[in-house]
Amino acid sequence: MDTFIFILEIIGTIAFASSGAMIAIEKKMDIFGVNILGATTAVGGGIMRDVILGVTPPTAFAKPVYILFAALTSTLLFAIVYTTPNILHSKIKNKIYDKIMLWCDTVGLGIFTVLGIQTASRLVTEDNPFFFIFIGVLTGVGGGVVRDIMAGETPYILVREIYASASIAGGIVYIACRNSVGEASGMLLGLCVTVVVRALATHFHWNLLRIH
Amino acid sequence: MDTFIFILEIIGTIAFASSGAMIAIEKKMDIFGVNILGATTAVGGGIMRDVILGVTPPTAFAKPVYILFAALTSTLLFAIVYTTPNILHSKIKNKIYDKIMLWCDTVGLGIFTVLGIQTASRLVTEDNPFFFIFIGVLTGVGGGVVRDIMAGETPYILVREIYASASIAGGIVYIACRNSVGEASGMLLGLCVTVVVRALATHFHWNLLRIH
Amino acid sequence: MDTFIFILEIIGTIAFASSGAMIAIEKKMDIFGVNILGATTAVGGGIMRDVILGVTPPTAFAKPVYILFAALTSTLLFAIVYTTPNILHSKIKNKIYDKIMLWCDTVGLGIFTVLGIQTASRLVTEDNPFFFIFIGVLTGVGGGVVRDIMAGETPYILVREIYASASIAGGIVYIACRNSVGEASGMLLGLCVTVVVRALATHFHWNLLRIH
Repeated sequence: MDTFIFILEIIGTIAFASSGAMIAIEKKMDIFGVNILGATTAVGGGIMRDVILGVTPPTAFAKPVYILFAALTSTLLFAIVYTTPNILHSKIKNKIYDKIMLWCDTVGLGIFTVLGIQTASRLVTEDNPFFFIFIGVLTGVGGGVVRDIMAGETPYILVREIYASASIAGGIVYIACRNSVGEASGMLLGLCVTVVVRALATHFHWNLLRIH
Repeated sequence: MDTFIFILEIIGTIAFASSGAMIAIEKKMDIFGVNILGATTAVGGGIMRDVILGVTPPTAFAKPVYILFAALTSTLLFAIVYTTPNILHSKIKNKIYDKIMLWCDTVGLGIFTVLGIQTASRLVTEDNPFFFIFIGVLTGVGGGVVRDIMAGETPYILVREIYASASIAGGIVYIACRNSVGEASGMLLGLCVTVVVRALATHFHWNLLRIH
Repeated sequence: MDTFIFILEIIGTIAFASSGAMIAIEKKMDIFGVNILGATTAVGGGIMRDVILGVTPPTAFAKPVYILFAALTSTLLFAIVYTTPNILHSKIKNKIYDKIMLWCDTVGLGIFTVLGIQTASRLVTEDNPFFFIFIGVLTGVGGGVVRDIMAGETPYILVREIYASASIAGGIVYIACRNSVGEASGMLLGLCVTVVVRALATHFHWNLLRIH
């Protein structure tokens, strides 16, 4: 189980670090800024979760491995774009780039949502589904909110259709299923629900009500 | 006393949720963004207070009722504006809208200031008026700062004449009076001072020194 | 040792309060906004450090002296610019102003980096250099990040060449030397390294890799 969770954490870290690093690269930040924004995006949600749960020092500070993976990811992306700068400009043509970014952000959202719920369940004995889901959403969206605020953008969570909603849906499925299908399968199921809901919403341009 | 505090909390929650939700509506966010910004504004200051005081998990996460009221308020406001969109445009004519927003923000500021001081006094035995007032101001202004930063605005507290000052004034009056008039009356008195100071300042366009 | 640390804290507080207050003055904020931004910049990094380390309430809230010095500094700067407004406009000519601001920010960065490491070492028994340096950087850059986000600017740490890098360099030197040269000398050494690295980087326009 610990290995399973660690693998999820590393995939989520790489996904979110990529999304932070690419925004920094688009904003013409230097290699250090790219690393900072990548790492902040990757560990931001987890740090908020730990502060809320009273875990001091937060895992991201106590165990260097997450920041290390975030830095490796950010530096690698920087190196790729630095050596082949055309990648960024060709994006207008083929949209592959936007798709990769969307997937990184969506996979990170799904993984950190279930990881947040899992951590909260281990630390808080009282069974409070509302609280668990709230911590899951915070862990899932936290890194992206910090990324967007630092980059001077309106946070995704406020403007993208079906973002926090996808995280909530995944969290509900995980909590509803884990007693019957087991912890690990429940996490995978919740994570898939978040990813599928967000992917469908983006593909079919689902929109929530909005006042024009 | 618990009922009295709970009623204040709910009124403050509704007031701040309204101010956050209306800014989100003005910024054309969808119904979920409106709920997120409403809830963040309503519970943001209290979460900061609890993190500073070491209350884990913060009350807003442990007890769903506050988020629930914030969501109800935000959704209701969204529904009203959605069904009668002219409301927003008529505001230029009659300024009633701006007044209501100002009152929501001011009442929230006053209520959360005294609630912050009250919570800090219960949890910290040492009698440290400076600390209590500081926690009060943080609780009062915290939600609005998060709201403004997420919405991409300069925080009110930095640019509105007599904002944190009104919160400090109310906090001082509450702490100075509570031993003689009792806890509940002291809270009401402090809250009224904050509201009156801010209302007078806005009405008479009081300004603090500024360099042009 | 306590006196030595206290002196460093007060110098760092004054330096960072100046940098926050001057940005507020440039943005035409009123005297209260200037005080808020000055104080937030001065104590922001320390509050983040204390929250991460589980120190509740954070030192800046428990002991009024830091906020008091930040307020005195901010008010004094406001008074100077208010009475001699030409100071701000003459800056275009002589650049002395920009240099002073850079020094304030750099000295604050260096001092709070070593203070953060020192506090973390006292509270956390486990010897984890990575963690200590991370806390040092957070303490050093935290106030400036809050300042820039509240003022609506892109955080320095993301865009200025050699900012967090200077903080990391100073932190490494402090940790590497303190066993041989003693705590106080190690702090001074680390602080000097941060200041010198940043000063050299600015003077010679050192730049980290960036994609154009």
